Amino acid sequence: MSASKRPDPPDDEVPYWEELGSEPVVDCSIFDVVSKRFRHPLREAEGDFYVIRTRDWVNVIPITSNFEMVLVNQYRFGVQKNSWEIPGGVIESGEDPVVAGLRELQEETGFTAERARLLGSVRPNPAIQNNTCHIVLAEKASKTADLRWDEHEEISTKTVPIERVFDMVQSGEIFHSLVLNALLLFSPVWEKIQARRRSR
Amino acid sequence: MSASKRPDPPDDEVPYWEELGSEPVVDCSIFDVVSKRFRHPLREAEGDFYVIRTRDWVNVIPITSNFEMVLVNQYRFGVQKNSWEIPGGVIESGEDPVVAGLRELQEETGFTAERARLLGSVRPNPAIQNNTCHIVLAEKASKTADLRWDEHEEISTKTVPIERVFDMVQSGEIFHSLVLNALLLFSPVWEKIQARRRSR
Repeated sequence: MSASKRPDPPDDEVPYWEELGSEPVVDCSIFDVVSKRFRHPLREAEGDFYVIRTRDWVNVIPITSNFEMVLVNQYRFGVQKNSWEIPGGVIESGEDPVVAGLRELQEETGFTAERARLLGSVRPNPAIQNNTCHIVLAEKASKTADLRWDEHEEISTKTVPIERVFDMVQSGEIFHSLVLNALLLFSPVWEKIQARRRSR
Repeated sequence: MSASKRPDPPDDEVPYWEELGSEPVVDCSIFDVVSKRFRHPLREAEGDFYVIRTRDWVNVIPITSNFEMVLVNQYRFGVQKNSWEIPGGVIESGEDPVVAGLRELQEETGFTAERARLLGSVRPNPAIQNNTCHIVLAEKASKTADLRWDEHEEISTKTVPIERVFDMVQSGEIFHSLVLNALLLFSPVWEKIQARRRSR
């Protein structure tokens, strides 16, 4: 196997490992697990590491004209409790993240938006997971369409004043890591919106 | 199997599903995967859902006396790139999250702190993962101890002015979802520290 072609990392970073190979472990349809073998470029070290592979995800911050956020409530089987979140889901193969976000927004809540843009992207778990979660801001959202839930989806929707959403963050009422990421990336945008409204 | 004893959810939330049973799928040492069968309490619906089970995690925000944050750089096998993060790791069975955070801080960086407290907790992925990630603030941190890395750990440490850390969030230089969660919970604390410093 040839040496990694990647450039050296910056001086304050650790060296990159080289991937030697990958073995399937289990296919769980919404994700699979593989075992990857890596070699350290300098030390006499090799190791096997499990990686959870899944499609990229998108989460959408839907804002109405009167500055409320559209929140959804779902039963979540991982934690076995209900969770207040923003709409989101799995990006289809070849689908643009903004398009995927607007699709999920409409399917889950019946809301559509007049404009939308990518706010940023995060890695849900760099240690053991390979995918990216994109965060989309959807503005001037309103209820115009019918719901289209996936099998087993059941979603309660409410609109909440944006200040109150940030209270739900600090109180722990919103606890989904990736939803919190979206709100972190949205907070400078919200500060600008507030400043604009104050200066009117 | 008896019906769930949990109280009904609030009116604006969806009904809770009842767990009927759980089958092991694969054991990957740092996590395992099970298939859980659930029944909806009202509809004629049952379904099988994969759940990734793992121990609870802790991430620590280490602040020095001159208001720098201690950051660590590691190669991350999930995303196959280096990642700037705060120290953190797996909480041992029965271990207090604050104690675990201070232990990870010392092992990974050699820094110890004069005081520490829990800032909050998040769920890394409520849909498919069962665990919690706790966030600890460690103040007046300084380098006093020797490093104790786990096998295959290799960590570069630097201290960064706190304002610059928030720039690294907005620029995407810090992209680990759970690290971003910690910085979101820390931001009101940082605002208070800045106000106190300004008023001196």
